[in-house]
Amino acid sequence: MDERFKQIAKLFQRLPGVGPRQAVRFVLALLDKPDSEIEELGYAISHLKQDISFCNQCFNISDSAVCSVCSNPSRDRTKMLVVEKVTDLDSIEKTGLYKGLYHVLGGAINPLDNVLPDNLRIKHLESRINVLTESVKEVELILAMNPNTPGETTALYLKSQFTDKPNVLITRLGRGLASGSHLEYADESTLKHALEFRK
Amino acid sequence: MDERFKQIAKLFQRLPGVGPRQAVRFVLALLDKPDSEIEELGYAISHLKQDISFCNQCFNISDSAVCSVCSNPSRDRTKMLVVEKVTDLDSIEKTGLYKGLYHVLGGAINPLDNVLPDNLRIKHLESRINVLTESVKEVELILAMNPNTPGETTALYLKSQFTDKPNVLITRLGRGLASGSHLEYADESTLKHALEFRK
Amino acid sequence: MDERFKQIAKLFQRLPGVGPRQAVRFVLALLDKPDSEIEELGYAISHLKQDISFCNQCFNISDSAVCSVCSNPSRDRTKMLVVEKVTDLDSIEKTGLYKGLYHVLGGAINPLDNVLPDNLRIKHLESRINVLTESVKEVELILAMNPNTPGETTALYLKSQFTDKPNVLITRLGRGLASGSHLEYADESTLKHALEFRK
Amino acid sequence: MDERFKQIAKLFQRLPGVGPRQAVRFVLALLDKPDSEIEELGYAISHLKQDISFCNQCFNISDSAVCSVCSNPSRDRTKMLVVEKVTDLDSIEKTGLYKGLYHVLGGAINPLDNVLPDNLRIKHLESRINVLTESVKEVELILAMNPNTPGETTALYLKSQFTDKPNVLITRLGRGLASGSHLEYADESTLKHALEFRK
Repeated sequence: MDERFKQIAKLFQRLPGVGPRQAVRFVLALLDKPDSEIEELGYAISHLKQDISFCNQCFNISDSAVCSVCSNPSRDRTKMLVVEKVTDLDSIEKTGLYKGLYHVLGGAINPLDNVLPDNLRIKHLESRINVLTESVKEVELILAMNPNTPGETTALYLKSQFTDKPNVLITRLGRGLASGSHLEYADESTLKHALEFRK
Repeated sequence: MDERFKQIAKLFQRLPGVGPRQAVRFVLALLDKPDSEIEELGYAISHLKQDISFCNQCFNISDSAVCSVCSNPSRDRTKMLVVEKVTDLDSIEKTGLYKGLYHVLGGAINPLDNVLPDNLRIKHLESRINVLTESVKEVELILAMNPNTPGETTALYLKSQFTDKPNVLITRLGRGLASGSHLEYADESTLKHALEFRK
Repeated sequence: MDERFKQIAKLFQRLPGVGPRQAVRFVLALLDKPDSEIEELGYAISHLKQDISFCNQCFNISDSAVCSVCSNPSRDRTKMLVVEKVTDLDSIEKTGLYKGLYHVLGGAINPLDNVLPDNLRIKHLESRINVLTESVKEVELILAMNPNTPGETTALYLKSQFTDKPNVLITRLGRGLASGSHLEYADESTLKHALEFRK
Repeated sequence: MDERFKQIAKLFQRLPGVGPRQAVRFVLALLDKPDSEIEELGYAISHLKQDISFCNQCFNISDSAVCSVCSNPSRDRTKMLVVEKVTDLDSIEKTGLYKGLYHVLGGAINPLDNVLPDNLRIKHLESRINVLTESVKEVELILAMNPNTPGETTALYLKSQFTDKPNVLITRLGRGLASGSHLEYADESTLKHALEFRK
């Protein structure tokens, strides 16, 4: 394979989870497509940042300045579920079971990757909570970080930041056995949390 | 391979999760062992029911009439964790985090497999709870069934049986995200339970 | 997520093996990259067909009209290895063990997918073989299709097409046990081929 | 769980591929079986070596002194396929495609595990080959070792031992792509063998 081909394949390795072999397959597959399809993808990528913007409230993906969740008057303004990434928000929204607001932090605290509290949208979360508590008696701040070290660290940090706020109730998503799993094969940490979160 | 060999291999297929190929490998592997090892295993199996008995209280495996958990005076007699199988009890006991009593039901309600409430040790659980509530103010009955249909059915049934008992608090093991899993990839049922079990 | 975002994510699902969830992750990951990186990928895709061309001999990827294999005078012109796709050629070339020429068919015969002999570069293969046999005594045509139904069909078809040509020796890549596999667990078809290809 | 239970579970870990958890499940499953089934398995294991014997020709499992393959007059006595283990013989016999004789070596040369040529039934193979070559013009010795280091070592050793014998043709099972695999994803060693075993 020639140099330019290799260069282009390498660009595709910037996509998450794409290795050298899959990158090559992507380029070869595109070469088989009609010109119009290739052009459409190239254009979409080149104009990505112009075309896609974020809600200035919760940082969800949004066409407009305020996203469809934040601008929906029927959402419950006494609940704020805090997630690391837009894809986490998306997973929960797809269940249709949560009717409150969201806040996307933009990651989780991970000193090894140089992600510190200041790199996350925590200040912005504070001002949103302050505004909400002015108009409602109590706001439930639901911490929905991932059950791993950066997620746990972030949850602990947020707890420490919001624990003294008046009218804020801090909760965490339930931990324990996932649906379809087996008690017998659960790891110790999952069983520990299953005992702790029993109710 | 000859007939007697096939017959013997077939006997090993009675062990859970052992298919025809693994059964053959078991027999061939045993044929390579010294006579003493083979004899030891054969003897142990032949005398299995004489050698191993169950606790007459919780139905855990036990040398003596009452197992080491039930006979331990320092275990918390205000908590009774109900599991389907001895292996579930074993998993929780290995965490070292639970200090109460256990009760092994002997399975989960599954009409398709002809497992009905009467086939489980539920009557016995009732009498144990009755005895305990005589001496303590409140007993927590922790339902630790597996997160699948038979487990859920059994938990619902036990709830209905014990809900009117005075001095019994019924709880369930926490449900939600297992340690090391990802919010983004969690199935809807797990997210539903994670929201429900939040605290 | 808004409409434009979903549209763009959908474009990424055209890449082979990319499902809806991975497509969303690709777009979100790109949004986190610096503008220059995004622009570079968009440009490369938009100019893909201008930038990358195929060898007019073997249909390998090539900067120039004739690829580096075909134009290399030290390659053995008495051997022609026929593959389905450029990635197959690439796998064999990477071993460094094959010193002959290649021919990329552009797929395998698969009537269910409307891939018929006329859709593959078989006519072109014939003229290349004709040219080669003029200058050398015998050309070995090595059929290196995949060991599945379309691959077998294509190999059979090529065999029937080239079997009467003078000075052409048709061979097939060895079939049998892959390195690191186990005789005990090999499927019947693999064992059949292992017996057939013994030597 | 009590001591005797743990001891018995440990005995089951002597079976190949059985870990502590599966061993416990085996014992618990047996405890649920009727007495007759348990007794039958225990008896079969205790009498294993009395009940099962090996063919004194090829060392296949056999009720009688000579197995059903060796005693079958219609098997082709010009072919002898050499395998490491009875399970390998069994896999090939199940395909129904091989009509010659077998020889079970009893393992593969592996100095790290103290398996040297003298520990395998190679002398015996030599005398069988000597007898066969007296009555037929040529015997094909098909080496069917596993495609891993001990298997390759054993094949090389046998080749060196039999290469000077008159009237012996040594072949090896075909190596290359397994059925259903893909050229694109084949490892280098498999591709190397696929090129070498082409025909």
